[in-house]
Amino acid sequence: MFHPLCPSSAVPFRVGDKWSGMVIRCLQDGPRRFGELRVPLRAVTPKVLSETLRAMERDGLVTRTAYDENPPRVEYALTPLGRTLIPLLDAARTWSETHLPALLAARRAAGRPA
Amino acid sequence: MFHPLCPSSAVPFRVGDKWSGMVIRCLQDGPRRFGELRVPLRAVTPKVLSETLRAMERDGLVTRTAYDENPPRVEYALTPLGRTLIPLLDAARTWSETHLPALLAARRAAGRPA
Repeated sequence: MFHPLCPSSAVPFRVGDKWSGMVIRCLQDGPRRFGELRVPLRAVTPKVLSETLRAMERDGLVTRTAYDENPPRVEYALTPLGRTLIPLLDAARTWSETHLPALLAARRAAGRPA
Repeated sequence: MFHPLCPSSAVPFRVGDKWSGMVIRCLQDGPRRFGELRVPLRAVTPKVLSETLRAMERDGLVTRTAYDENPPRVEYALTPLGRTLIPLLDAARTWSETHLPALLAARRAAGRPA
């Protein structure tokens, strides 16, 4: 899904910024640690991923929970508000599956790299 | 709808870039000239609006038609492909009407300007 050549990376719909939608996808099945998010989101630098998560936390879309363990464990999870964005991401994905080939064909015909 | 303080300007969903969604809204009822787009999209500089329209044209979302008149007339219109994005914009608007107040409240509570 997050492969650089995957159509979804060219989707003309995005949540908030370039990466928030991908973060929501990564968290939709349960909490994840920062390092676990780094695996599917390897195209994102750690700095940008941190900033994305902080912005999403401020917007009430994501929670950050630090567990008092050794080594310390920090988990990110979607809030109920963050979860309300999943149907919109699903709609954007359905749009892409149906219409993205036409958009990419137009772009190629215009001599612009797809 | 495009007032700087209108909730839709803070919508976490955007089409392609910051302005494409607004261009689609402005064209959904029929073709418009550049100057007619400038009225509702006055927050966008002419340069950025031109670039947005060119990018949307390359992506097959918008057509640009020059009429051989005096003075010359150029009209922009949505393509059928561009029209397929309207239901997604509607879904994003419905999301905003329902959930944006919670997002803005979280942002305010985090001490970030809404």
